[in-house]
Amino acid sequence: MKTKEHKIPEATIKRLSTYVNYLGRLGTDSNPVISSEILGESCQVSPAQIRKDLSYFGEFGVRGVGYDTKKLEAEIKDILGINHNWPTTVVGVGKLGQALLNFDFFRNHGFRIITAFDSDPNKIGTEAANGVTIQSISNIEKCVREEKISIGIITTPVAAAQDVTDKLVDGGIKGILNFAPIKVKVPETVTLRNVSITSELDNLAYLLTQKKR
Amino acid sequence: MKTKEHKIPEATIKRLSTYVNYLGRLGTDSNPVISSEILGESCQVSPAQIRKDLSYFGEFGVRGVGYDTKKLEAEIKDILGINHNWPTTVVGVGKLGQALLNFDFFRNHGFRIITAFDSDPNKIGTEAANGVTIQSISNIEKCVREEKISIGIITTPVAAAQDVTDKLVDGGIKGILNFAPIKVKVPETVTLRNVSITSELDNLAYLLTQKKR
Repeated sequence: MKTKEHKIPEATIKRLSTYVNYLGRLGTDSNPVISSEILGESCQVSPAQIRKDLSYFGEFGVRGVGYDTKKLEAEIKDILGINHNWPTTVVGVGKLGQALLNFDFFRNHGFRIITAFDSDPNKIGTEAANGVTIQSISNIEKCVREEKISIGIITTPVAAAQDVTDKLVDGGIKGILNFAPIKVKVPETVTLRNVSITSELDNLAYLLTQKKR
Repeated sequence: MKTKEHKIPEATIKRLSTYVNYLGRLGTDSNPVISSEILGESCQVSPAQIRKDLSYFGEFGVRGVGYDTKKLEAEIKDILGINHNWPTTVVGVGKLGQALLNFDFFRNHGFRIITAFDSDPNKIGTEAANGVTIQSISNIEKCVREEKISIGIITTPVAAAQDVTDKLVDGGIKGILNFAPIKVKVPETVTLRNVSITSELDNLAYLLTQKKR
């Protein structure tokens, strides 16, 4: 796999994620070959767009035959960097945190949740899911450093989000996925992605309102 | 409130959502006035960007004084269309669905969850949260029509997502927020937003991988 250009559009990365998710659900053992037409239809993307997305990373597929599904899945996983382990932690074991801890997706994409943190004394020391024991948030910095945790997923209430972010950063975290509906601050060395459920809903309300006006 | 232009950038809408969330947390009663500097610092946006975002919708604030927080909150809520009721349903009462049903945000932004649906016979008929009773997914179409539900939030597994989407659409739903990691198909009359947790994590892995390469 070679990268032809440095800057790949974010939309391409999103679609690569869609393609590899679809291939995972399809099962590459039972479907050794797939055409860009079928892949495109399943992912709601044009075949030309698929070819363009993949062209950033080299030559894939055989004209008139299609893509070797196993090879395509492996190559996209390599491009996205989800073909190896990302030691991951979930901070905040409320309902959303629990949902994420039980999320099958993680295992298939190399996100290995090795620990979870919460501030509730009734939760600390209990098992959250899949053998993961909940620890006190006061252990975050030490644990992130010792366990070499790369990715922190924040699902705390707003009031705690910046504090646990700082603790993750102090421990040497590399990337944060933040679900708390507040903009947390991180140094430039840390990669931050926000999933704002509130913002998506507000946006939906706005679009529906525009239709009515 | 007047709209100067038809097409407002999506990034502006996202920031308006951030501003109004912040004002809600700040409390407009105890903070009657706010400068664009303070608002900007809290939302990690430049004061100039705030002024530009608001300029799409008319004149706000007084030079050298700042914004009347109560008025600004009301105007942004009016722009986003979150100052009135959006009858809402959650389809799929797993851990993520439960998390959303207990999400305080909904009440403050006009998303009134009036019903929830699941396929699990052990859940049907029980109370999900806040007085909302879980109904069978076979009731979706009838219930959406009779209760005039505007917004459907899908938190089912992938395998059920398209089926419940079709049922929501048949009942006359106007907007869908889809958390299932699959692209569901809707007619053009229905507004669809996807929240792809899988795609966000894959993107984070990609960004971290790029840093290492």
